[in-house]
Amino acid sequence: MKLQELREEVLEANLELVRRKLVLYTFGNASGISREEGLVAIKPSGVPFEELRPEHMVLTDLDGRVVEGDLLPSSDLDTHLVLYKAFPAIGGVVHTHSTYATAFAQAGREIPCLGTTQADYWYGAVPVTEPLPADEIRGDYERNTGHAIERRLEGVSADERPGVLVNGHGPFTWGKSAARAAFHAVILEELATMAHLTFALNPEAGPLPQPHLDKHFLRKHGAGAYYGQKSDIP
Amino acid sequence: MKLQELREEVLEANLELVRRKLVLYTFGNASGISREEGLVAIKPSGVPFEELRPEHMVLTDLDGRVVEGDLLPSSDLDTHLVLYKAFPAIGGVVHTHSTYATAFAQAGREIPCLGTTQADYWYGAVPVTEPLPADEIRGDYERNTGHAIERRLEGVSADERPGVLVNGHGPFTWGKSAARAAFHAVILEELATMAHLTFALNPEAGPLPQPHLDKHFLRKHGAGAYYGQKSDIP
Amino acid sequence: MKLQELREEVLEANLELVRRKLVLYTFGNASGISREEGLVAIKPSGVPFEELRPEHMVLTDLDGRVVEGDLLPSSDLDTHLVLYKAFPAIGGVVHTHSTYATAFAQAGREIPCLGTTQADYWYGAVPVTEPLPADEIRGDYERNTGHAIERRLEGVSADERPGVLVNGHGPFTWGKSAARAAFHAVILEELATMAHLTFALNPEAGPLPQPHLDKHFLRKHGAGAYYGQKSDIP
Amino acid sequence: MKLQELREEVLEANLELVRRKLVLYTFGNASGISREEGLVAIKPSGVPFEELRPEHMVLTDLDGRVVEGDLLPSSDLDTHLVLYKAFPAIGGVVHTHSTYATAFAQAGREIPCLGTTQADYWYGAVPVTEPLPADEIRGDYERNTGHAIERRLEGVSADERPGVLVNGHGPFTWGKSAARAAFHAVILEELATMAHLTFALNPEAGPLPQPHLDKHFLRKHGAGAYYGQKSDIP
Repeated sequence: MKLQELREEVLEANLELVRRKLVLYTFGNASGISREEGLVAIKPSGVPFEELRPEHMVLTDLDGRVVEGDLLPSSDLDTHLVLYKAFPAIGGVVHTHSTYATAFAQAGREIPCLGTTQADYWYGAVPVTEPLPADEIRGDYERNTGHAIERRLEGVSADERPGVLVNGHGPFTWGKSAARAAFHAVILEELATMAHLTFALNPEAGPLPQPHLDKHFLRKHGAGAYYGQKSDIP
Repeated sequence: MKLQELREEVLEANLELVRRKLVLYTFGNASGISREEGLVAIKPSGVPFEELRPEHMVLTDLDGRVVEGDLLPSSDLDTHLVLYKAFPAIGGVVHTHSTYATAFAQAGREIPCLGTTQADYWYGAVPVTEPLPADEIRGDYERNTGHAIERRLEGVSADERPGVLVNGHGPFTWGKSAARAAFHAVILEELATMAHLTFALNPEAGPLPQPHLDKHFLRKHGAGAYYGQKSDIP
Repeated sequence: MKLQELREEVLEANLELVRRKLVLYTFGNASGISREEGLVAIKPSGVPFEELRPEHMVLTDLDGRVVEGDLLPSSDLDTHLVLYKAFPAIGGVVHTHSTYATAFAQAGREIPCLGTTQADYWYGAVPVTEPLPADEIRGDYERNTGHAIERRLEGVSADERPGVLVNGHGPFTWGKSAARAAFHAVILEELATMAHLTFALNPEAGPLPQPHLDKHFLRKHGAGAYYGQKSDIP
Repeated sequence: MKLQELREEVLEANLELVRRKLVLYTFGNASGISREEGLVAIKPSGVPFEELRPEHMVLTDLDGRVVEGDLLPSSDLDTHLVLYKAFPAIGGVVHTHSTYATAFAQAGREIPCLGTTQADYWYGAVPVTEPLPADEIRGDYERNTGHAIERRLEGVSADERPGVLVNGHGPFTWGKSAARAAFHAVILEELATMAHLTFALNPEAGPLPQPHLDKHFLRKHGAGAYYGQKSDIP
């Protein structure tokens, strides 16, 4: 992927967060990676979304060294970088403080798969990370946040859980592109909203039975998928 | 009804779902039927609503064979078809994952008729289906979803309950046309919202007394109706 | 007031309900009265708000006889008429099914005056009516709904409680004009929202102490009021 | 700062409250101060936001004497003035009745720092004031409201708690400018929303551990801050 294209896609993913009302002011950030070049494009830190232009996207290598751009990258850059290293198949990462997902993160609760809406995108619960120990907070905080996500996802495919809740903080999502990571952030906020409402109606609401979960996840993902079109619409 | 008209009406019903914020991305679908021709027009699967044009609507017969259109129909088509066969008077079907109605579906709770807003459109509770047994999920899932709705409505007029909640999934609504099915989907989301708020204020809130239910439903429906205009406004 | 002016003001009040998202489709209605002429202008029944023009407003006398207009008046007309007779100082009436206020009505709970926002407009709780007995529902239902409101307000100034909740139904508000009645409908929905949220945080939340209630209501109403401007802004 | 600039900034802060849906009709007000001139510009009382122009902002001295403007100042002026005297570093004050923050005020509950979203702006809980005693309500009410805030903040830097909840009333926020005070009002409403949702999911949810609070507050504030850009974007 050309770097200019990457910048534009990352800008567009950031703007999708605004359009979907997932971010207030400068909260939240989206990034994308060119695996061939080993370069990440990310939103600059603390710049209002409405002022963002493609050339404001900061390009860094996988060690966080800025290789292009006059602005400082998002302060969450190091978390993104850990995720790109941990999950080689992903092409984009998004972090927001979207309202309902953040409430689950603050409550320290995962979001069980309560219905088919979630089963279409998460193959089970949206996990919540363990609280960071004090020394990991005082140390390399943003990087350690990434490692906490990595530990929580151990043994699980990043494809089957395209996002988690960071305890006391908020959601991180990912996907094959920055656009797809933003898409998952939007869906996660909706899933959190539905789960919140469901628990109010039925505190004992449990996860979908396994066959129902399989049915919905697998009709959209993998070899047997039959949802959507075979190719783009004419 | 001309097929071109049917396609346009079905497109319009799909767009009404977007305008009323009942669908995220490609979630949800509306269809309509021409009873004379025995043909159903339905939204194609996984196509963004903003790109939809009338010619994208897929025409199928009542066995689900595509008779016109280059796109694949909504993966929920078979559920729609079962409903068209089960309820001969209906002309449109809508399925959404609207937030509050889906929460009731996920909680496995029906929506009792708590007030006159519901009594104006549902002659009693909005029913919730039984969970599908594993073999019905593994088998012909979408068709069996339709049969679960049919079983739940047994002995009840589809006119008096223009929609149900599918357990662990979300709402299906119908009406004499695709437009009317979409109208009922919008109202159902509002009824679910009100019921959710009502239960938070009064967990023991019970249904309207029968005379109140009768009064409201029957002032809008049937021979004695006196709501609305005798004819269209000038 | 000229009748043409009255029609325009009533139309405008109906449209304010739409702009403030208090009504879905054709739910809800606003009316206004010319006391000199003894005539009421009210929204026609079941006509979409977006199609309403001033000449659609139906003019009736205080016994509900249509004196001008080709359309049928709102089916809630008789409730409005009872209120105009019961409260001689009011000039407008509004009925909605706004979400949170209706939830309180469905829960059969009044809205205590939990804070200064309410104390600025209601001099105490927003009352809820008694459920209508079956014979009053089967009989002259809309008129009896008005009488239930009248009974509930007995001994209280309509100025100090510019609206109530009708049990199992929804809010009715009023004011010196149709515009003011709509204003109170908007505020009531906000008060219901705040009260709902407050009870979730503190189920024992009690009303403002009397001195605080007095302070706020009386700084906006009556001889000692000091809120707002002495005259219109230049 | 020129007075004309001050008026424009104060107008703009008032309009931000409208754009962010923090105020209904004329509820709420923003002010700013020119410390050199000892003059405060504040929204006039009871004037609709959409009609406001810079010249409507009322200029008063710190004792509340109007020095310029034909309109009466907001009835909450005296509360603002107490805050300007109590906190010499602030340049703007905002008062709203925003929905969720007001619910906490009505419930008489502070908002603990449940997550990093709050830790980025409040260095701990959003405090709630003690209820005003009856004689302080009957006396110089608006001024005493200011003193209740002052007492509650005793020993705490106004920089580290840029806003409080006034018991039974609603939020007051402040900042180095009117714009920043409005920014804090917007964020406070979001924090209140998230806290409300968090408590519903976990009534025992506790504050962030101190190291996490330190990390987030201090990466944005003070000498070691590393969030945002060193200078304005090009």
